[in-house]
Amino acid sequence: MHGYSGDKQAYLTRLRRIEGQIRGLQRMVDDDAYCIDVLTQVSAATRALQAVALGLLEEHISHCVADAISTGGPEADAKVKEASAAIARLVRS
Amino acid sequence: MHGYSGDKQAYLTRLRRIEGQIRGLQRMVDDDAYCIDVLTQVSAATRALQAVALGLLEEHISHCVADAISTGGPEADAKVKEASAAIARLVRS
Amino acid sequence: MHGYSGDKQAYLTRLRRIEGQIRGLQRMVDDDAYCIDVLTQVSAATRALQAVALGLLEEHISHCVADAISTGGPEADAKVKEASAAIARLVRS
Amino acid sequence: MHGYSGDKQAYLTRLRRIEGQIRGLQRMVDDDAYCIDVLTQVSAATRALQAVALGLLEEHISHCVADAISTGGPEADAKVKEASAAIARLVRS
Repeated sequence: MHGYSGDKQAYLTRLRRIEGQIRGLQRMVDDDAYCIDVLTQVSAATRALQAVALGLLEEHISHCVADAISTGGPEADAKVKEASAAIARLVRS
Repeated sequence: MHGYSGDKQAYLTRLRRIEGQIRGLQRMVDDDAYCIDVLTQVSAATRALQAVALGLLEEHISHCVADAISTGGPEADAKVKEASAAIARLVRS
Repeated sequence: MHGYSGDKQAYLTRLRRIEGQIRGLQRMVDDDAYCIDVLTQVSAATRALQAVALGLLEEHISHCVADAISTGGPEADAKVKEASAAIARLVRS
Repeated sequence: MHGYSGDKQAYLTRLRRIEGQIRGLQRMVDDDAYCIDVLTQVSAATRALQAVALGLLEEHISHCVADAISTGGPEADAKVKEASAAIARLVRS
């Protein structure tokens, strides 16, 4: 069980919608849609993916990281460092 | 025909690979994968999407925008503004 | 006292270096430097600012948020939500 | 003369305002301001820097890149590639 497990169905629904956006992008490219329209849809899919990431991150901090902090010990510090590295990857992607 | 039309198959291949990444994310969530591992894959998919966008943008500038500039007239200015707005959406997404 | 207080001097040094980068940008613009060279320096300053933000965020989570979680109660949840909102602003900027 | 030369004073004014934001950040850190408030100001400064970059880029494309395209020859292609690399650095920073 992880932070997002309670909202698993909601995350799956969002990821399926993003999969639909990516398939829509394939249709646009296949139909020679105008470049700027393709780019607008790429930006929309990117934002949807980042919203999923931000949701997962919030639940990760409030569950997994919080549990490690409540338990204490060296594990708490490792969890904060791990979450910080994930935040850095997200900010830079 | 648009800037990316010559590379259409390459773009479709990249978008299909991204679709595979999104389906992989659904499997990870469905299998209760560790949050940080899910986030790492979300970052990878986001970067792949942005690489597609940067490729489309470069071809758009070197074809559609360049053609409008070569032709001259008010259209050239409109194309530069439109491309700039797409770049801004990309930077902010 | 906050998460970053122990590293205050290091943060001040980094912020002074960023201030120097911004003044360098003013000199470049004033000297009519080539646009792409100005943009390269803007990207460098942006990355330096984001590195400061990621550092502050890690210390905030490992101190302020961790303290609230250890204490427990509604404050813990509020701190996680506040940190998540700051992460979202960072990802979207 | 470059794309931004006509707006040089406006860019200098914006960069001086960003310099003020960075000095404000130093005061906040020096005064032990709350981490989240510091982060909010870092996000604001980052957005202001990126707005400067987007402005410079638009003027670069509509002047330097457009001139190279109008002149034609291998230089046009080099300018588009150079601008695309700058856009990529911006998207990834």
